[in-house]
Amino acid sequence: MTQQGSLARKLIASHLVDGDMTPGSEVAISIDQTLTQDATGTLVMQELEALGLRRARTEASVQYVDHNLLQTDEKNAEDHTFLRSAAQRYGLWFSKPGNGVSHPTHMQRFGIPGKTMVGSDSHTCAAGSLGMLAIGVGGLEVAMAIAGEPLRVRMPEIWGVRLTGSLPDWVSAKDVILEMLRRHSVKGGTNRIIEYHGPGLDELTAMDRHVIANMGAELGATTTVFPADDAVRDFLRAEGREQDFVPLAADTDAVYDTTDEIDLSGLVPLIAQPSSPDKVVPVSEVAGTEVSQTVIGSSANPGLRDFAVAAAMGRGRQTSDEVSFDVNPTSREILEDLTRMGATFDLISAGGRIHQAGCMGCIGMGQAPAVGQNSLRTFPRNFPGRSGTPEDSVWLCSPETATASALTGVITDPRQWAADHDVAFPKLALPENASVNTSMLMAPLPEDQARETEPVKGPNISALPEFTALPDQLQLPVLLTTGDNVSTDEISPAGARALPLRSNIPALAEFTFTRLDETYPERALEHRQTSGHVVIGGHNYGQGSSREHAAITPRHLGLRLVIAKSFARIHWQNLINFGILPLEFVDETDHDHIEQGDTLTCDQLHTTLPQDTELTVRNTTRDQNYRVRHRLSPRQVRAVLAGGLIPMLADTR
Amino acid sequence: MTQQGSLARKLIASHLVDGDMTPGSEVAISIDQTLTQDATGTLVMQELEALGLRRARTEASVQYVDHNLLQTDEKNAEDHTFLRSAAQRYGLWFSKPGNGVSHPTHMQRFGIPGKTMVGSDSHTCAAGSLGMLAIGVGGLEVAMAIAGEPLRVRMPEIWGVRLTGSLPDWVSAKDVILEMLRRHSVKGGTNRIIEYHGPGLDELTAMDRHVIANMGAELGATTTVFPADDAVRDFLRAEGREQDFVPLAADTDAVYDTTDEIDLSGLVPLIAQPSSPDKVVPVSEVAGTEVSQTVIGSSANPGLRDFAVAAAMGRGRQTSDEVSFDVNPTSREILEDLTRMGATFDLISAGGRIHQAGCMGCIGMGQAPAVGQNSLRTFPRNFPGRSGTPEDSVWLCSPETATASALTGVITDPRQWAADHDVAFPKLALPENASVNTSMLMAPLPEDQARETEPVKGPNISALPEFTALPDQLQLPVLLTTGDNVSTDEISPAGARALPLRSNIPALAEFTFTRLDETYPERALEHRQTSGHVVIGGHNYGQGSSREHAAITPRHLGLRLVIAKSFARIHWQNLINFGILPLEFVDETDHDHIEQGDTLTCDQLHTTLPQDTELTVRNTTRDQNYRVRHRLSPRQVRAVLAGGLIPMLADTR
Repeated sequence: MTQQGSLARKLIASHLVDGDMTPGSEVAISIDQTLTQDATGTLVMQELEALGLRRARTEASVQYVDHNLLQTDEKNAEDHTFLRSAAQRYGLWFSKPGNGVSHPTHMQRFGIPGKTMVGSDSHTCAAGSLGMLAIGVGGLEVAMAIAGEPLRVRMPEIWGVRLTGSLPDWVSAKDVILEMLRRHSVKGGTNRIIEYHGPGLDELTAMDRHVIANMGAELGATTTVFPADDAVRDFLRAEGREQDFVPLAADTDAVYDTTDEIDLSGLVPLIAQPSSPDKVVPVSEVAGTEVSQTVIGSSANPGLRDFAVAAAMGRGRQTSDEVSFDVNPTSREILEDLTRMGATFDLISAGGRIHQAGCMGCIGMGQAPAVGQNSLRTFPRNFPGRSGTPEDSVWLCSPETATASALTGVITDPRQWAADHDVAFPKLALPENASVNTSMLMAPLPEDQARETEPVKGPNISALPEFTALPDQLQLPVLLTTGDNVSTDEISPAGARALPLRSNIPALAEFTFTRLDETYPERALEHRQTSGHVVIGGHNYGQGSSREHAAITPRHLGLRLVIAKSFARIHWQNLINFGILPLEFVDETDHDHIEQGDTLTCDQLHTTLPQDTELTVRNTTRDQNYRVRHRLSPRQVRAVLAGGLIPMLADTR
Repeated sequence: MTQQGSLARKLIASHLVDGDMTPGSEVAISIDQTLTQDATGTLVMQELEALGLRRARTEASVQYVDHNLLQTDEKNAEDHTFLRSAAQRYGLWFSKPGNGVSHPTHMQRFGIPGKTMVGSDSHTCAAGSLGMLAIGVGGLEVAMAIAGEPLRVRMPEIWGVRLTGSLPDWVSAKDVILEMLRRHSVKGGTNRIIEYHGPGLDELTAMDRHVIANMGAELGATTTVFPADDAVRDFLRAEGREQDFVPLAADTDAVYDTTDEIDLSGLVPLIAQPSSPDKVVPVSEVAGTEVSQTVIGSSANPGLRDFAVAAAMGRGRQTSDEVSFDVNPTSREILEDLTRMGATFDLISAGGRIHQAGCMGCIGMGQAPAVGQNSLRTFPRNFPGRSGTPEDSVWLCSPETATASALTGVITDPRQWAADHDVAFPKLALPENASVNTSMLMAPLPEDQARETEPVKGPNISALPEFTALPDQLQLPVLLTTGDNVSTDEISPAGARALPLRSNIPALAEFTFTRLDETYPERALEHRQTSGHVVIGGHNYGQGSSREHAAITPRHLGLRLVIAKSFARIHWQNLINFGILPLEFVDETDHDHIEQGDTLTCDQLHTTLPQDTELTVRNTTRDQNYRVRHRLSPRQVRAVLAGGLIPMLADTR
């Protein structure tokens, strides 16, 4: 039965353009705002060009630069110039390098309760902290939203999570989302919107909720929503934007498709062990493990209080000789506030290495630990190798746990540290008004000036590849078979070597799947002209980051078909957008019958896919047949058959 | 005639172990302190191991980590672990990543008037600001100094530079050294110690003098010395070390081998154009040129006042939309002071991207500009490509000029900016006492604990290559001919790709000379087994950074002989240390007769080199003979014949 009265459904209903709101059926939702960051934005800008856009049609579209900040060669600076000029051309806001990480910055400057947003970053959902409906999608869908198109998505279930009680000292918002991951795993939120409600919200600030909403992405959720209540009003007031406040909440008798409840009073400090965000245990269980690095910051713990609590713990103390204590301010505004209140001084004095404001190590841009040495981070993800180090050992935890561990040199429960050192939980005196400073945020140019602006394309900005239609019959070698939970980090890695190539598809393609199999790109190229190839996946295939490069680069190398046990939402959509057919095994055990080198065939796709959701794939090497299904809407079928959204849209013009 | 009474000669005389102080003859000087940084230190630690050292015999030897801070993969962190453990093993101080750039940090914590120091960094000479005799040398000579050996060097001439007058507003120490470079070029200081004296010193603080002493390296000088006067006492007092002060000055009737005079009152803001530190013009001559980046920091403008003046200029203002304004704090201490006095806040507010404390873009670790876009930096060097960008366009200037240009978006004379905006030169209220904080500086372990420490070698720490003796007869193909002023940056580049490989010789060797000729490493490897090869150089061959990698990596590829018009001091010594014979043309025009691919021969080296300073090289391809000379001491001849210092020392044990 479809439930009414939840805030999530109200938000969708208020923006519904097409479809009915039965879970599983496709709905079209009008989009008020968009967010792009630089690592995905260079493609979005090229897609706007391919779509022939005159000017953005959203209320606010913002291009951030927060990923590619290391500038180890000329490529990053070239991308920045391209993004700035393209944002000017198309009527977008542009947030300069150094202004901050997109998610907290967007929340501070643009977040408005009740608005919808899509973003080409999987943590776009963080804006749910303000009562927005904010969904991470592929870049092409952001480009279409900028062009005024609604977002088409399968209506998710609404998962009501009731919070009661209040957090004990030394336990914070990160422990709430780690508890969710402990209970429900990285697949727990698939095809769901998580809606938090209940009396436990009273003591969670808007930025605390950001922590929880942000890492909803790690649960695989479509998004997360929180009500817009007094905490949101307080936040907007501090940002000088109280006039943007709109109270929003679920009906008091709201009923949810699924429910859960967390008593905040009962939580303890938690930590995700290497190398998945859901390998969560109490910190006390792993206490005493040696640490060589701790990092605070990232969009998963971006708030002033997250740094201020670390500063208060470090004040007058010194981090361990054996530990590098890295501090990544999330934005210029937050660094200004920290500096004004003395926390920056305390962090430096305690041994902090203060880095430039941005994503930094969270996206593998620097801060790579040594092989096998433990790194504790307040980040959202610890997928293998994402730190930039093969065989890394990265743990995820709260700022309290990270700081206590930096001070002792071993993994330390902050409650134990406080008891050992007779430290009371710090009362943080945060400024009532934030250091609002918008001068690194360039407003859209007036339309006449915008139209005269030419995007500046350096040599690192490649053209989009050509996307040919899907053949009616496929006969493809299997070039790779994978297990469960393969992330987009493993399909198209980030990190300091690959990330600067995000606007250069042929060069970036050489990194495709190399974390799983170094020979993949070469083998794929061999088959590209003759047939293309297929990849076999397990459950939750393509989890993690929203990067559409994880679809475009294998497509560039000839990938036409992925058969998996199940797909993560954004990557599934990206495969469709770029003309790769995503199919699911009807019988999961068939996954294990297929081996690398087998040849698979399927016939009459152009007639079968529009008519049937099930079809047969033949393994000619092993003389076996497998039943598979697709979950494509009629529009998505047309897109895949056309070779992707870009040729489909071109055909209709 | 040999002159007496200069401070430089007094410093040498007080540490003279062997030789006589006639310019040009070899002297041996006892060494009190050593400085190593991470990019050269990993080799020094391996050399200590090769020398079988039990424990450092100096008064203070300090291993800094300031170059390899980006950590784009696991290599940097591995190096840090190796350096920390090796420093502990051999009784060295260890300055953790984040503690700061070696030169200002050493001056603040260890600098003592009258002491001698060698350092494996060409800017070691900066310590001359305190009345030290501090000389940049190759790593192997630092290793020998740590082991208690005296430094052997040809006695330089003493160049007395008398300063009169006082600097006008908006003109600062950087303009003094740029004036020296304008007058004398990058070869002007070769085989000289620059000694500043005169009434103009009265208004130059110790940190101002650091700026001038530091970039003495760019003049090619052996080192620079300043007297230890009240300015030095004030500096040491602020650092809590007044007890280390010793007054030192030249005799009032001191006479110098060479002299020059600068009236500080007559100086104007200067700027070095791309791509050499001596292409100096008044800022006003190039005013109006578009700028896309300005960077303040580095050991060439490391002082609190250098950042504070930028902060004061930026207070309440905003840098141009078109400019990235990068700020590299030089040390934790300076960043603490800046933060305490409010300057950090002002820099952030003005649009500054605050980076971690370290060398950063100065050594090509990040901050690379886009191709062809102008970058203004307060750095010491702008050799081609050193920024990390091929075809870069880097300018060197003072913090005042850099900041004025960041605010306007075009190269701007700060006097003009002040006039246009009616701004008086800021009166800087610098704290009387520095934020001294030594907890990131790990003291040497007690001897018993040290001996139990085993250096931790990760996979990136290669062994030193084997060094075979020089054959008696050479018959070598010419694989490269170069013009004048080839820098060690061009021989063995730094930057984000190469620098992490500084402890891995075979991997690093693949970058050798690639800025001049991409095919060099491959061609050299082809000839390595059969004959090795020769390189032909112009004037000032091997200027710039002290990196001994510029000798070791071509040696690894088979280089046995360099014939040049003249050599830069440190690189010449490094060639000898690693068994490469450096010869100079008697007739410079012979340089132009030799082409790549020619074969050169020379015979009976083992009998000729010890007896004669001149010999004949035969070009068998062109049937020509060239007279060449060497400037090797008998000990240096033995070293080259043995294949370098390491096999020579091994032979004598």
